[in-house]
Amino acid sequence: MFSYTITNTSSDTAARAGQYNTPHGTFHTPAFMPVGTQGTVKAMSPRDLCEVGAEIVLSNTYHLYLRPGHRVVADLGGLHSFMGWDRPILTDSGGFQIYSLGALRKLSEEGVKFVSHLDGSSHFFRPEDAVAIQEALGADIIMCLDECTSYPSSWDETRASMELTLSWARRCRDARTRADQALFGIVQGGMYPDLRRTSAGRTVEMDFPGYAVGGLSVGEAKGLMYEMAQIALEQLPPDRPRYIMGVGTPEDLVILSGLGADMFDCVMPTRNARNGTLFTSTGRLVIKNERYLRDEGPVDEACGCYTCANFSRGYLRHLFMAHEILSSTLNTIHNLSYYLCLMGTIREAIAADQYAAFQKDFLSRTEGENKDDTD
Amino acid sequence: MFSYTITNTSSDTAARAGQYNTPHGTFHTPAFMPVGTQGTVKAMSPRDLCEVGAEIVLSNTYHLYLRPGHRVVADLGGLHSFMGWDRPILTDSGGFQIYSLGALRKLSEEGVKFVSHLDGSSHFFRPEDAVAIQEALGADIIMCLDECTSYPSSWDETRASMELTLSWARRCRDARTRADQALFGIVQGGMYPDLRRTSAGRTVEMDFPGYAVGGLSVGEAKGLMYEMAQIALEQLPPDRPRYIMGVGTPEDLVILSGLGADMFDCVMPTRNARNGTLFTSTGRLVIKNERYLRDEGPVDEACGCYTCANFSRGYLRHLFMAHEILSSTLNTIHNLSYYLCLMGTIREAIAADQYAAFQKDFLSRTEGENKDDTD
Repeated sequence: MFSYTITNTSSDTAARAGQYNTPHGTFHTPAFMPVGTQGTVKAMSPRDLCEVGAEIVLSNTYHLYLRPGHRVVADLGGLHSFMGWDRPILTDSGGFQIYSLGALRKLSEEGVKFVSHLDGSSHFFRPEDAVAIQEALGADIIMCLDECTSYPSSWDETRASMELTLSWARRCRDARTRADQALFGIVQGGMYPDLRRTSAGRTVEMDFPGYAVGGLSVGEAKGLMYEMAQIALEQLPPDRPRYIMGVGTPEDLVILSGLGADMFDCVMPTRNARNGTLFTSTGRLVIKNERYLRDEGPVDEACGCYTCANFSRGYLRHLFMAHEILSSTLNTIHNLSYYLCLMGTIREAIAADQYAAFQKDFLSRTEGENKDDTD
Repeated sequence: MFSYTITNTSSDTAARAGQYNTPHGTFHTPAFMPVGTQGTVKAMSPRDLCEVGAEIVLSNTYHLYLRPGHRVVADLGGLHSFMGWDRPILTDSGGFQIYSLGALRKLSEEGVKFVSHLDGSSHFFRPEDAVAIQEALGADIIMCLDECTSYPSSWDETRASMELTLSWARRCRDARTRADQALFGIVQGGMYPDLRRTSAGRTVEMDFPGYAVGGLSVGEAKGLMYEMAQIALEQLPPDRPRYIMGVGTPEDLVILSGLGADMFDCVMPTRNARNGTLFTSTGRLVIKNERYLRDEGPVDEACGCYTCANFSRGYLRHLFMAHEILSSTLNTIHNLSYYLCLMGTIREAIAADQYAAFQKDFLSRTEGENKDDTD
């Protein structure tokens, strides 16, 4: 029901391209998953998502558990039917969202107690609950409940946190019942190379069909993030998909693909779109800037998305300044097109075995550009 | 460049069907114009508007004059190019919006002084300015600056207001310069039959290519509104399009079409959509109601719109409760589909010369239904 095929490898980097077959179809890797927190990628309809090239989307267990409730989603036919999206879906475990609640959550070996951000109600998630909820939601790929270690943390704290994640991973693996879902394990270990190696090795021993690397982009420097990702990725079996959670910028996707990562998710393209920051082939563009008032050109001459084909920067600036809903929609169409075209370019560079040259060129072009219009 | 053809008349009502040819194509009457206040029909892309069957949209001179400014719109190629909408557009004159400012505006024979709702800046519109601004915007149909009389008003106040509107209509007619725009006159006269007749007669003497009836739905009872509309419509030449401004409910559209009205605009379908009230063939539906939590059915079994074809009431309720942008988009697609399908049904009933029977059936079906789910 699931199979991962590596179609191309890079001779001068660790990058690889492939395809992952799921009960709801195939997605190509390296893949970027737009984030649909509450069962919708904000401002996008499913047909918009198809048009921008999304092959898989991510949704959040924590949010759907609280509203409308996983049983409601199940009663409405499961998450695919609920969202009107018949392609692959991945749900996170809720671990990261609960981690983000800070003082509103309390961990124990048994599980995590937390307070709803919606109504202050108390909840308790055991690893078994995280699996049962994700089974009710019915995504193709589901995630083990993990603890995301705070940054910075001491080695002792990080090791204890890692042990908890490993213990929970085993319980999630033993609790799952659905053959039409792939449960991925999650590597933690904070910013300690030895713990990252231990976490990866012991997670791999549990023989998951895919592995994620969590606990990155939590405040550490970029170089440290890449180092930790690389250490983890090197420990993971080449025949399984590798997913870097919650990352990242276009540059991050290029660099981490070069290190052998296969899957990514991040709110950056969608959130930035709603805030009026657009990704282009010549750098980032802040649409509210006065300079775009009478600008007849598209956001990006090199982009073929619906937004760039039909609307001027001047109009997009107007929509943003006037707080119009269409601003969020058109900006999101563009930013997701940018991200998903980038993933296609990454896959093509791997297929042509030109990845090192592509990466070097991409990073040199974007180095200065991403500073030119941000505020 | 403009021509209005009556294609069908009704033998048992005053209804008629036709088509109005403009420099940006033809629209069929009776027509409903979705409202695009700030150069966008809220939550809709131009392709969404085409899909729901919009043939003409309305935009607001007052709003576009203030933001981004009519000269900016002109510099960006005019309103059609600005919005990415190449079908007909009508702009109002700004009169009604300025009327809505209440204490923030001051009228004189020369024009109207008003304060911007955006930044408190002072502005002065003469009738000649309203025309010049609308010529810069470049809509196919533009409107004379008028004064919308408050309700209630005395006969003397209403007559003075009507005289001002008539004086301004002549100045607008004399000020216009573009042959590719049709300038419509506006009948006022408040709730006084004699003044409605006088206003209509003297406006018609100025020989406009189309006539609007303004100052309705400003607080008066439905029966009085229909009576005033009928009196005005009866005075208007049958070979020119007749536009009832700012009206109305589905029932209003059916009744006023039966009285010989050809064009309508109203924020009701779009605003209600964003507030979660949906029009259906079996009455209005308030999507937030708890009863829809697990409802797998579409909003309206009889509707073929994208929303009804792909999403359940349960999902739409979730999107609304979670304040998701997609809620506004999907609800607006449905409500505009409902309105524009209704206009198609009205035109078909006229073409089949079954209008009286259709109207009777429609009003009897909706009488009780529209109370069943509103709150």
